[in-house]
Amino acid sequence: MPVVKANAPLFSMSQHSVQLNSATAMPKASGFLWNRQMMLHMNCRGYATAQFMQPEPAKYSHGPMLEAKTFMQPEHSYFAHHPGRFFYIKNEDTNELFSVPYEPVRCRSQSFSFVQSSAAINWLVECFGLSVSIEVNLSASDPLEMWQFEVKNTRDSAVNISIYPYFSIGYMSWMNQSATFDSACNGIVATSVTPYQKVEDYPKLKDFKDLTFLIAEDKPDSWTANQYGFEGEGGLASPDAINTPLLASKVSAYEPPVAVMQYRHRLLPDEIRRHRFVFGPATNKAEVKQNRQRHFGDPKAFSTQQQRYIDYIESGKGCLNINCGDPLFDPFFNQWLPRQMFYHGDVNRLSTDPQTRNFLQDNMGMSYINPTTARQSFLLAMSQQLSSGAMPDGVLLSEIAELKYINQIPHTDHCVWLPICVSAYLNETGDISLLGEQVKFADSEQTLSVHRHIELALGWLIQRRDSRGLSYIEQGDWCDPMNMVGHKGRGVSSWLSLATAFALQQWAEINQRLNKDSQRLLATATEINAAVNQHCWDQDWFARGITDDNVAFGVKADAEGSIYLNPQSWALMSKAVDAEQTTKILAAVEKQLMTPYGPMMLAPAYTAMREDVGRLTQKYPGSAENGSVYNHAAVFYAYSLCLIGEHQRAFEILIKMLPSQRDALIRGQLPTFIPNYYRGAYFQHPQQAGRSSQLFNTGTLAWYYRCIVEEIVGVKGELGCLVIEPHLPKEWPKVELRRMFNGIELNIKIEQAVVEQMSIKVNGEQIEDNHLQGLVASKSYQVEVLVPKTAAQQNAVMEAV
Amino acid sequence: MPVVKANAPLFSMSQHSVQLNSATAMPKASGFLWNRQMMLHMNCRGYATAQFMQPEPAKYSHGPMLEAKTFMQPEHSYFAHHPGRFFYIKNEDTNELFSVPYEPVRCRSQSFSFVQSSAAINWLVECFGLSVSIEVNLSASDPLEMWQFEVKNTRDSAVNISIYPYFSIGYMSWMNQSATFDSACNGIVATSVTPYQKVEDYPKLKDFKDLTFLIAEDKPDSWTANQYGFEGEGGLASPDAINTPLLASKVSAYEPPVAVMQYRHRLLPDEIRRHRFVFGPATNKAEVKQNRQRHFGDPKAFSTQQQRYIDYIESGKGCLNINCGDPLFDPFFNQWLPRQMFYHGDVNRLSTDPQTRNFLQDNMGMSYINPTTARQSFLLAMSQQLSSGAMPDGVLLSEIAELKYINQIPHTDHCVWLPICVSAYLNETGDISLLGEQVKFADSEQTLSVHRHIELALGWLIQRRDSRGLSYIEQGDWCDPMNMVGHKGRGVSSWLSLATAFALQQWAEINQRLNKDSQRLLATATEINAAVNQHCWDQDWFARGITDDNVAFGVKADAEGSIYLNPQSWALMSKAVDAEQTTKILAAVEKQLMTPYGPMMLAPAYTAMREDVGRLTQKYPGSAENGSVYNHAAVFYAYSLCLIGEHQRAFEILIKMLPSQRDALIRGQLPTFIPNYYRGAYFQHPQQAGRSSQLFNTGTLAWYYRCIVEEIVGVKGELGCLVIEPHLPKEWPKVELRRMFNGIELNIKIEQAVVEQMSIKVNGEQIEDNHLQGLVASKSYQVEVLVPKTAAQQNAVMEAV
Repeated sequence: MPVVKANAPLFSMSQHSVQLNSATAMPKASGFLWNRQMMLHMNCRGYATAQFMQPEPAKYSHGPMLEAKTFMQPEHSYFAHHPGRFFYIKNEDTNELFSVPYEPVRCRSQSFSFVQSSAAINWLVECFGLSVSIEVNLSASDPLEMWQFEVKNTRDSAVNISIYPYFSIGYMSWMNQSATFDSACNGIVATSVTPYQKVEDYPKLKDFKDLTFLIAEDKPDSWTANQYGFEGEGGLASPDAINTPLLASKVSAYEPPVAVMQYRHRLLPDEIRRHRFVFGPATNKAEVKQNRQRHFGDPKAFSTQQQRYIDYIESGKGCLNINCGDPLFDPFFNQWLPRQMFYHGDVNRLSTDPQTRNFLQDNMGMSYINPTTARQSFLLAMSQQLSSGAMPDGVLLSEIAELKYINQIPHTDHCVWLPICVSAYLNETGDISLLGEQVKFADSEQTLSVHRHIELALGWLIQRRDSRGLSYIEQGDWCDPMNMVGHKGRGVSSWLSLATAFALQQWAEINQRLNKDSQRLLATATEINAAVNQHCWDQDWFARGITDDNVAFGVKADAEGSIYLNPQSWALMSKAVDAEQTTKILAAVEKQLMTPYGPMMLAPAYTAMREDVGRLTQKYPGSAENGSVYNHAAVFYAYSLCLIGEHQRAFEILIKMLPSQRDALIRGQLPTFIPNYYRGAYFQHPQQAGRSSQLFNTGTLAWYYRCIVEEIVGVKGELGCLVIEPHLPKEWPKVELRRMFNGIELNIKIEQAVVEQMSIKVNGEQIEDNHLQGLVASKSYQVEVLVPKTAAQQNAVMEAV
Repeated sequence: MPVVKANAPLFSMSQHSVQLNSATAMPKASGFLWNRQMMLHMNCRGYATAQFMQPEPAKYSHGPMLEAKTFMQPEHSYFAHHPGRFFYIKNEDTNELFSVPYEPVRCRSQSFSFVQSSAAINWLVECFGLSVSIEVNLSASDPLEMWQFEVKNTRDSAVNISIYPYFSIGYMSWMNQSATFDSACNGIVATSVTPYQKVEDYPKLKDFKDLTFLIAEDKPDSWTANQYGFEGEGGLASPDAINTPLLASKVSAYEPPVAVMQYRHRLLPDEIRRHRFVFGPATNKAEVKQNRQRHFGDPKAFSTQQQRYIDYIESGKGCLNINCGDPLFDPFFNQWLPRQMFYHGDVNRLSTDPQTRNFLQDNMGMSYINPTTARQSFLLAMSQQLSSGAMPDGVLLSEIAELKYINQIPHTDHCVWLPICVSAYLNETGDISLLGEQVKFADSEQTLSVHRHIELALGWLIQRRDSRGLSYIEQGDWCDPMNMVGHKGRGVSSWLSLATAFALQQWAEINQRLNKDSQRLLATATEINAAVNQHCWDQDWFARGITDDNVAFGVKADAEGSIYLNPQSWALMSKAVDAEQTTKILAAVEKQLMTPYGPMMLAPAYTAMREDVGRLTQKYPGSAENGSVYNHAAVFYAYSLCLIGEHQRAFEILIKMLPSQRDALIRGQLPTFIPNYYRGAYFQHPQQAGRSSQLFNTGTLAWYYRCIVEEIVGVKGELGCLVIEPHLPKEWPKVELRRMFNGIELNIKIEQAVVEQMSIKVNGEQIEDNHLQGLVASKSYQVEVLVPKTAAQQNAVMEAV
């Protein structure tokens, strides 16, 4: 359970220590919780970002102004009136005031810890002789936050205190907003009206959850529902209302609402008081009352609901448990990575139209957690394929969903991911029955088998190439595409060409294993590789593409954006390179792209728009993806290194992508999730480089997991057969694994030893090759593997001597 | 020059005075400035809302989060990090810190005044022995703020101070934002990139003014451009950076930028120091440098630019100057009302697609200020009319403008405003040549005369009626229409029927004066009035309409929304009523709708959605327009009272709409503009009622002006002839006027006297009737008018005796 223990100076810098860069020194640590209806992202200071689905993402706790409806923003900024969940605590004897977690009073606390666990976020704060503990979890099914607050008197004398939960409601609607305390619900209920202008929009929103409520287990001594009335001239840091004995029962009538209550207690030494709250949106008051009944109806109701949420989160376990002895890596891989993958696969990033490439890769990840979901998702995606083979830009998850934002811009890469991700699923599960499933198309009721759907996707990719054999990029492909490279219909993408070759090879491998024809696929892949070599190899690396006007870009001659990571990785993956090229590519990536946080997506970062390239180059140095360590791209580089046998290098990159405790504060996050990027432009802005986007939506995860499972520890599915082929890094002389494989549990020990070749014992018996077949669920398997020490490991041992 | 002099307690409530409702007690006084490119709305505390056109409204000083692009919101909320323009002032000897105007330090000042003048906004603040004066004006042509800061040492000993201008830049863009000090510009320049997704959007935005700059006349001693770096843990109220001797030159690289500089001075007793700044957006650095040259290039440059802005504002004078002796009314009518009308008419509410009804009425107002603009605007509007006669929902002001928001919902009232507003223009100017102008249509290059255009508009209105003779409402008519009343194509609007009758009568009057046929128009008006009487009269007033399902609404039987103001006003205006009905209507309005702030638009305010009525009823009590004193509707009631000879009642309503000094704080504004509404639902929420929307965009103005000019003081144009027909209220025993009429200046004195009938002397000579004809610009006119004392005035005199 990662804990940030931050003592006061971290949070409350002394007034003259401006040599600290407060923007980076301020802990940005955050954690997140979700269920199928909502997501709650808590910053350790108490700021909160919450969204729920109805069916599009919506809010019940708003900022103080009308916010744009958009995708989640990276490097989210916090400000005084940002939505938050705070508890003010006042010592009525001394008037000492502080707030937990930290905002808005920003009082120096004696100790502070912020704890993200799988199914809850906790704070432990000691201040002014009081020890406060807060816990938040979500409902298992509804968009509801459950808060538990405990305070203990740690002094040796009694103390009189007031506790004020403060929950932001904010600017709900310009149409109407109001709030008051409702005795029947025992809480504050704020009402608002979603505005609309077109008659036809009304039916969609008339049943929206337009209410926000904060209900309590215990009756408060006083309350207020009016933001201005609460703050007065004291502001959030020292609200006027708290400087009075009791809150003044102020309603909100069009003014911005807030939910504040007051509880007065006399605490004897060591006495503990607990309060519980439920916060969230509702359609009407009856629903609020139901929630009161469900959570506070009997003394165990709240704990029962908490347990249901724990059960939900625990249903998302991965297929592999590693014990490598690294206190950072083991919990990250065993607990946090599957948790983040489960979030992606189970709730589709809280979107109704996930991008097809994301949806397929997230479900590749789900193949290792819950293959049933993955299977259904692949079938859903293919049912929205066009009969031309083209995959749509986004997968619509409900009948009223529609393609939004970037999904309205046609991209050319979506077909690549279908064979790649389905291959991984088939290898892990052995579920070849999937290939026979009959699936319709978006533009036709005719059904074809999954196998045909995938061949059609490949056919579409083969078709959409120019006379040189290179893939058209049109208005973009993957990894934040450049939208002006090929929008006139002539420009091509080296990455997409190589990715097409790799997809063909992946599918050929499946066909081979199924004794189906693979030669045609492999021949086309070879042809594409040759075309890329002929037209896109530029001295020491591959160009990123060639524009409509026949200008190669991502080449040495370019002052900015002269090298892109993705074409290099995928050239290695698709075997487009010879030994000399490989050496050159590895050297170029190492020299031009590598940073302490992993390889950057491109360099040098652009400083101005290049009009023939377009959207990407608008992202200046230090901005979101321009020259960032874009983890999704970085993980493919690691994967490609595995495929060429450079496992040690791959491992080192994977570790770089994982924020360590040491630099968690610089990156502003705990190692509980992988963000979509770390700030790049390392050579131009080394100080900013490495900062986390704090955005936990990323296609990185499934590939990170797959790298470790299949390549590093090498316990890999092959159409239902388990293949043992470890490539342990020098840091791991031995590992112990628990592998769940199609419902079969295997305990596997792998040790680097001074042996000539790998040897494998299953339940004490040596086996001939590294394929474990005929495994049965009723048996238990103890597998012992000895692998030859890698050169690196031998060196490591010698160094130690 | 209205001044709010607020002593400290108003701004810094004592900590226990929670009996004050801080939301209403906090002064919300605000002022606004504009030029043709931008608008700046300053709250007296220092918070600012600024928009400029490129060509759609854009921002250069942003909130801390991604804001929704939408129309201006009423009752705008302020919060700690709201955009603002502040100056921190630190006494370096004592460490006393305050900020002007007031935010963000919120220090008790010895005195505070906030002064809106025509072309500038000023603050005068005294605190800690320093007297600070700030002035802001805009550029005459560019979207630029010009700030002048002066501080004087009022103590009898020298003092060392630091001054820190703090200008919000905020969350510019998720694509990129950065800022640093630029020595060549002598200021902070923040860069950002406007995001886009579609290739076709790029050309529209590539030349946007994506930079924000704050340049200074004098070189600062230090600066910072990083919001977090400036604030640290002290927050805005006590920034860490200010607690050090010098700011630490922090750039922003993707972090939210800010523009802060520091000036250190030793001030002798009575010594004054001045600093000047220019703040705004720019396309590139060259433009920033140009601005430096233009404003600070020579010692007089800044004052020259200030004068140019004063000249611009002074070009917007009204046609009438009143001296009635009321220190509130005279400056309001002579200075502030024409200023607000000029803002509407000259910049079209900073919109590229003003709603047609607003555009026409705003230009009716412009007829009294700058008839040339009004004429061009009427021609532009008619050039977008359809050949069916239908007027569009919005008038597109540029080639790339498009209909947005509510303008995408078809409304049925736009044709009504064309004859009404053009009539007013013709009567004021006598410019009958307009009627012969040939104008094309939106859907045809064929041209027809303006006279035909207007007849086509009337024809369209006559056509779009049901078998009962009532006007279809479809998805809405005027005054926040109900969008579900008639969306199926059958529902009708009594208001629109009556407005059609009034429009016909207005145009008949013009035709009569031009000796053209008016009988047909008048006959149709009579027929419509009869239909409304037959189907919509409900016991004591007119219903608001009849739904698609043949249910009358706005009737006594309705528990909510049982009476609407507009149908009553327009029935009086269109002479649809007999004496008994008039009495009933006046009584009903008085009893059910009247409040201390004017008549409400409807009552009782709705508390729930009524699905056959729609959008309006979504606006709950206390919300924007539901049951509000919607001034645009209120002014028509006053106008209708004038038309039936109830001038005293009309005058009393007009005065109610004008916030007086006394209750300016409750309404949260100075009497420098009329807001679009005062909060209503008076009977349900008397405490909230009367609060100003603070939104200065409103169609009220031209009608308010016309009421006073034509009906109350009665110096009215009639196709170029000036008609004297005063109806002075009892409060004005006499008035002195300066009337500009087609370039002719007339000085007119009107006095209530004990006379049988009105008598008029022009340059000492009695004239026969009240029509002043043959006026010539070369002469000067002194007009003396005696009018019989009104009954009210006689009573007033008797009471005084």
